[in-house]
Amino acid sequence: MQGQAQQQAYDRGITIFSPDGRLYQVEYAREAVKRGTASIGVRTPEGVVLAADKRSRSPLMEPTSVEKIHKSDDHIGIASAGHVADARQLIDFARRQSQVNRLRYGEPIGIETLTKEVTDHIQQYTQVGGARPFGVALLIGGVENGTPRLYETDPSGTPYEWKAVSIGADRGDHQAHLEENYSDDLTLEEGIELALETITSTNDEGTSPDGVDVGTISAESEEFVELSNDEIESYLEANDLLATEEDEEPEE
Amino acid sequence: MQGQAQQQAYDRGITIFSPDGRLYQVEYAREAVKRGTASIGVRTPEGVVLAADKRSRSPLMEPTSVEKIHKSDDHIGIASAGHVADARQLIDFARRQSQVNRLRYGEPIGIETLTKEVTDHIQQYTQVGGARPFGVALLIGGVENGTPRLYETDPSGTPYEWKAVSIGADRGDHQAHLEENYSDDLTLEEGIELALETITSTNDEGTSPDGVDVGTISAESEEFVELSNDEIESYLEANDLLATEEDEEPEE
Amino acid sequence: MQGQAQQQAYDRGITIFSPDGRLYQVEYAREAVKRGTASIGVRTPEGVVLAADKRSRSPLMEPTSVEKIHKSDDHIGIASAGHVADARQLIDFARRQSQVNRLRYGEPIGIETLTKEVTDHIQQYTQVGGARPFGVALLIGGVENGTPRLYETDPSGTPYEWKAVSIGADRGDHQAHLEENYSDDLTLEEGIELALETITSTNDEGTSPDGVDVGTISAESEEFVELSNDEIESYLEANDLLATEEDEEPEE
Amino acid sequence: MQGQAQQQAYDRGITIFSPDGRLYQVEYAREAVKRGTASIGVRTPEGVVLAADKRSRSPLMEPTSVEKIHKSDDHIGIASAGHVADARQLIDFARRQSQVNRLRYGEPIGIETLTKEVTDHIQQYTQVGGARPFGVALLIGGVENGTPRLYETDPSGTPYEWKAVSIGADRGDHQAHLEENYSDDLTLEEGIELALETITSTNDEGTSPDGVDVGTISAESEEFVELSNDEIESYLEANDLLATEEDEEPEE
Amino acid sequence: MQGQAQQQAYDRGITIFSPDGRLYQVEYAREAVKRGTASIGVRTPEGVVLAADKRSRSPLMEPTSVEKIHKSDDHIGIASAGHVADARQLIDFARRQSQVNRLRYGEPIGIETLTKEVTDHIQQYTQVGGARPFGVALLIGGVENGTPRLYETDPSGTPYEWKAVSIGADRGDHQAHLEENYSDDLTLEEGIELALETITSTNDEGTSPDGVDVGTISAESEEFVELSNDEIESYLEANDLLATEEDEEPEE
Amino acid sequence: MQGQAQQQAYDRGITIFSPDGRLYQVEYAREAVKRGTASIGVRTPEGVVLAADKRSRSPLMEPTSVEKIHKSDDHIGIASAGHVADARQLIDFARRQSQVNRLRYGEPIGIETLTKEVTDHIQQYTQVGGARPFGVALLIGGVENGTPRLYETDPSGTPYEWKAVSIGADRGDHQAHLEENYSDDLTLEEGIELALETITSTNDEGTSPDGVDVGTISAESEEFVELSNDEIESYLEANDLLATEEDEEPEE
Amino acid sequence: MQGQAQQQAYDRGITIFSPDGRLYQVEYAREAVKRGTASIGVRTPEGVVLAADKRSRSPLMEPTSVEKIHKSDDHIGIASAGHVADARQLIDFARRQSQVNRLRYGEPIGIETLTKEVTDHIQQYTQVGGARPFGVALLIGGVENGTPRLYETDPSGTPYEWKAVSIGADRGDHQAHLEENYSDDLTLEEGIELALETITSTNDEGTSPDGVDVGTISAESEEFVELSNDEIESYLEANDLLATEEDEEPEE
Repeated sequence: MQGQAQQQAYDRGITIFSPDGRLYQVEYAREAVKRGTASIGVRTPEGVVLAADKRSRSPLMEPTSVEKIHKSDDHIGIASAGHVADARQLIDFARRQSQVNRLRYGEPIGIETLTKEVTDHIQQYTQVGGARPFGVALLIGGVENGTPRLYETDPSGTPYEWKAVSIGADRGDHQAHLEENYSDDLTLEEGIELALETITSTNDEGTSPDGVDVGTISAESEEFVELSNDEIESYLEANDLLATEEDEEPEE
Repeated sequence: MQGQAQQQAYDRGITIFSPDGRLYQVEYAREAVKRGTASIGVRTPEGVVLAADKRSRSPLMEPTSVEKIHKSDDHIGIASAGHVADARQLIDFARRQSQVNRLRYGEPIGIETLTKEVTDHIQQYTQVGGARPFGVALLIGGVENGTPRLYETDPSGTPYEWKAVSIGADRGDHQAHLEENYSDDLTLEEGIELALETITSTNDEGTSPDGVDVGTISAESEEFVELSNDEIESYLEANDLLATEEDEEPEE
Repeated sequence: MQGQAQQQAYDRGITIFSPDGRLYQVEYAREAVKRGTASIGVRTPEGVVLAADKRSRSPLMEPTSVEKIHKSDDHIGIASAGHVADARQLIDFARRQSQVNRLRYGEPIGIETLTKEVTDHIQQYTQVGGARPFGVALLIGGVENGTPRLYETDPSGTPYEWKAVSIGADRGDHQAHLEENYSDDLTLEEGIELALETITSTNDEGTSPDGVDVGTISAESEEFVELSNDEIESYLEANDLLATEEDEEPEE
Repeated sequence: MQGQAQQQAYDRGITIFSPDGRLYQVEYAREAVKRGTASIGVRTPEGVVLAADKRSRSPLMEPTSVEKIHKSDDHIGIASAGHVADARQLIDFARRQSQVNRLRYGEPIGIETLTKEVTDHIQQYTQVGGARPFGVALLIGGVENGTPRLYETDPSGTPYEWKAVSIGADRGDHQAHLEENYSDDLTLEEGIELALETITSTNDEGTSPDGVDVGTISAESEEFVELSNDEIESYLEANDLLATEEDEEPEE
Repeated sequence: MQGQAQQQAYDRGITIFSPDGRLYQVEYAREAVKRGTASIGVRTPEGVVLAADKRSRSPLMEPTSVEKIHKSDDHIGIASAGHVADARQLIDFARRQSQVNRLRYGEPIGIETLTKEVTDHIQQYTQVGGARPFGVALLIGGVENGTPRLYETDPSGTPYEWKAVSIGADRGDHQAHLEENYSDDLTLEEGIELALETITSTNDEGTSPDGVDVGTISAESEEFVELSNDEIESYLEANDLLATEEDEEPEE
Repeated sequence: MQGQAQQQAYDRGITIFSPDGRLYQVEYAREAVKRGTASIGVRTPEGVVLAADKRSRSPLMEPTSVEKIHKSDDHIGIASAGHVADARQLIDFARRQSQVNRLRYGEPIGIETLTKEVTDHIQQYTQVGGARPFGVALLIGGVENGTPRLYETDPSGTPYEWKAVSIGADRGDHQAHLEENYSDDLTLEEGIELALETITSTNDEGTSPDGVDVGTISAESEEFVELSNDEIESYLEANDLLATEEDEEPEE
Repeated sequence: MQGQAQQQAYDRGITIFSPDGRLYQVEYAREAVKRGTASIGVRTPEGVVLAADKRSRSPLMEPTSVEKIHKSDDHIGIASAGHVADARQLIDFARRQSQVNRLRYGEPIGIETLTKEVTDHIQQYTQVGGARPFGVALLIGGVENGTPRLYETDPSGTPYEWKAVSIGADRGDHQAHLEENYSDDLTLEEGIELALETITSTNDEGTSPDGVDVGTISAESEEFVELSNDEIESYLEANDLLATEEDEEPEE
């Protein structure tokens, strides 16, 4: 009977409080985030690193089509974990907000400002009926007036600022790895290495260049750039993280 | 009681998260896709092949009326699997988006752009209440600046890019057949053969020309063309895939 | 408990997917079609025949008031099976679409075009909440540029093109009879005979002229005409299908 | 459990299909019709007769306030059976449609046209959510270009044309009485007698003039007229149908 | 289980048909009428009498604040029984309709016309979702062209015309008393006496002037007037209906 | 099972009739009124007294922030009992209606007029879906053309006029106390004393000036004034109602 | 069964009355407040102190990103406890109201005025359907014409004014500590000390400067200022409240 009642409790499509003050639909949306492969963010004085696990489910699927890191504005990148189609909606929303800011104020949007516009949007879907919450978490990284910033949005619509953070599958292990290995004086390159190490730490077979996306926003250039497959391969090789690819997909 | 609760869980008409972070209505819509006959897409350097199993349920039904492959724009074809009436809605949507793009920008729409407009449309039906998700998957194939592209849309609204893919019934067997036989240097003709082989691989009686639709978009012409029954028959015959038609429907 | 759950599953008034990917409200609407008396369509090179079983429930009911075949445009007739009041709505919709086409393009609407506008309309009632699906199937027959066309619309909003088809009660037996007796070179008169034979094949007492409607659209005239009672009686008599009317209703 | 499930099935307020293709709310609305006292329609070559059983529930109630026969237009009368307040809505709708027709086309509305506008209105209440079906059946009688016409509308929104028909309580017995006694060459007076006989056939105590309304539309005058109490009394007396009124209500 | 199902059946907030064709919410609203104290209407050739039982629940409550008889227009009074706040809504509606009639046509509204506008308004609340029916019955009395008229509206939206009628608590006993004692040639004063007798007939302790409201519309003046406490006391005293007031509320 | 059914009966959020004609949501809202501390109204020939129990739940809470008596217009005060936030909505509504009246007619609103506008507003929340009833009762006191008036509004939207009344907790005991001690010739000061006595009658520890609000509208000035703490203390002391404050909150 | 019924009672998404007059969704929202870390407000003659416990969940999370105290206007600060994303909505609402007041009246908004605008906004979410209540409590502190004011808003939309108050976790213990230690003649510095002592009173490990936010609005400057980490550390050290930070997060 417990099971039935619980199931009835979540199938109404509206997010309301349980007797102990919890919002179950939001908590279930957090489970949807955990079902997604991980994304990692690392903030260093030299810039922000975003890295995403995108191990392909089939050798015939184009690795580039599994998008986990997106450019939101020249100086902002966004990584996601969770429901892919939901992520696309929020990233489109973030891009529109970035454009609106440039049009209205003639300057790039602030990282915190953008994050809060996104989280306000997310919150609405947890309070007003007729829709479900977004089943996705985002990492919003960027550089604002030379200062690197790294934010997380969760399905409740709460913004968090981080030095280094993991979202999605294996968050517990990843976050422990980050806490142990993070230091405040990392170079951007060391940040990339920490992110790749963290992703690989929960994958015995190592990481292939096709199985990960890496983007950075350096404090100097204030520009979001994605690493090429070759660059990623170099980092993986140099740090002994590279997967042995013998039984991999056909080469293009 | 379990059964009742489960049944109640899906009959609300709004797509929400289960305690483990899943969207059941979307997963049930994926089942609707599996109930449809298969469509296959194969991308070769020379162009994209779309092929669809459309075995008729009655000898008196016009084979041409079971539409599974549609022209969306001069350079784009779409194949579907799943709920036929839903497919028609999405294909109409795709056609309108293609026209709007030509009107607004004076140029043909990109394959990825179109795919993402379609998947955003699909996603809305999974988050906002008052409607059910679309019970159909699409293969969107086309050529953009000389480059063949092949995308899949699923009922969650996620876009995937593929080298070769099967949707609908027998996806498991078909995809295995594709993975075993695909190579990156197929000619367009070999792509057609691979697609027809894959469809026939799960059909002991072979394939009749009336029971399959084949369309291609060649990298050179950038034009969607459907193969005639005779052309299909030649391919089937040459590859020993042709059904023995003795007890077939009356000829026209 | 099973029964209760099932009953709850269908009494929500919104069409959603079941765990195995089915749309129960649409399938129940198909049952409503089966509860209606049969309509038959036969396409011949010389034109399309529509015939409908309309056996009256009472000798005092005007046989003409049980409308099962309707003129949609000069060159298009529509027969229905299922919920009569729903059929009227769809036929009104078809007539309006026909008129709009003439006004907008100055020419008669195509048979396939009209069919698809009708099925798109039907599909909307299966996806968006706040209404039930239409409980009726239609046969849309007509001649377009000299070519006879015969389409079926079902409650899911799927269009099918047929050479010969039966909708409503006894579809199984009727369709078997059609498949056995249809040939591609029927004359229009032979088409009428085949349709009347098919209807009578499941009625031991024969068919009375009042109990059936017949309409044709000949390829030559491209005009929908309904057969008079006398004409129908001749066909029935000539083919030994005429009911013995001794205990029939009072003559007018 | 069956009872509970059934009760849950009908208390949703939206009309949807059951697994066997039935619309329960419409069938329950038909029960509401059966709960109403009977109305009878008889069509003769000389005109249409409408008669309604309106036995009063209290001697202090004004018999004229139990309206069961209404003038819809000069040439059209409407009798009802079932939910009285619903009947008033439909009759108001019919009157407005009649007026609109006169304004728009400068001529009286056709009987069939009016009937179909009413049934289309009724059908809407069975398909679109947010309201219940109309719990009433109507008899619409009139004369059009000298031809008497008699239609029935039922709660599903289906129009039927009749020579003679009964709606409401005792429909089975009444219809059997009509079928036995109707002939196509009745005079209008014989039609009135048949209607009064039919009503009285299920009432052992006979009929009082206050307990019945009679209206006619003669083919010659094309005008709806209601019979006076005296005229009704004459008919009842002449046909030995008059109730013995000894313990009746106080005279005015 | 029966109890639960029944309770579920009425707590949906929309008025729909039960399997036997009944509208339970309307029937429950009729129960709300029975819970209210009685109102009596008596029509005489000299005018209409409205009387209402308004026994106060507390000696400190102002008897005038328990309004049960209201002036709707110069020539129309309305008495109510049932849910007081609902009555106020309908009476406001009636007043607005009266004013609109004077503005639009320059003449006082007819009693039957007003009644039917009110009952149409009531009916809407029984058919369209999103609201509950009105839990009140009204007696609408007035004089039209010198003729006294007395109508009842019930929660289904059905209008009834009466010579004399009781609504609310004890309707059965009151109506029996009216039927026994009513005659068509009552004077207006005798009508007042009959109304007061009827109310007192179910109250052993007699009636106090504060416990009843009486209003009349005389055929001559065509004006609604309310009787003063002194006038009521005279009538009560003369007819031996006066309550012995020893333990009554403090005098003002 | 009874418990479950009952709970289901009230958790629908729409106010409908139960089988015995009751509106449970309105009755539950009356329970919310009883959960609030009491407010007392006393009407004397010299003016109206409103008094409210506002015992603070914490010594650090500002007693002035527990508002129970409000000025609605110069000549009108309103006291409340029940859900505080709901009371604020109704009082805002009353203030707006007062202002509108002054703007539209250039004169202060009547007490009865205002009360009925408030109760009509309350009634709407009990009939139309999408909101719950107001969980608050109001006492509306004022002077109109020199005459003191005192009204109560309850959650059903019914207005009552009183000589003296209590709403909220202990209504039974308070009302009995009022009935025993009220007389029609109280002075305004005696009215204040009666109100304070009534509140203290159910509080063994006496009343502190901070624990009660008192407002008056004198017939002479026609102005709403609130008594100061010192004035209240004098009344309490003179009537031996003052709480012994030794262990009271810190003085400001 | 009790459990199931209870769970069903709260999962409807609309706030309605229970049989004992309670609004469960509001009470559950109060539980959400208790799940949040505490915020403390202390009013002194020299100004208002707001302090918030913001112990970080991870050493890598930026302490500044856990915002619990916000500037609403120059002279107003707001602290929150409960659902963080909801708090952001209300604080945005408060800021907009502050700006509107300055634009419309050219002067800063009053503290009570702002509080009541916020609580009216909160109340709407508890009465009208389609949304859940806000799961957050606010402390609104400010100085108005030299007078310090401190208000609390709760999820029901009730405003309370306080001398000193705690919201969120440990409210019981905190409020007891405040009641014991508060006096009306605190200096602003003593107010800061009392707030920090109260927060630390339920935390054995002491408080770190990063784990608490403190803001003040002094009566003299009428300006909201946030204390720096160094200032907070001085207060903590001076009052022996400082956490021993040996195993703390890496320094920036």
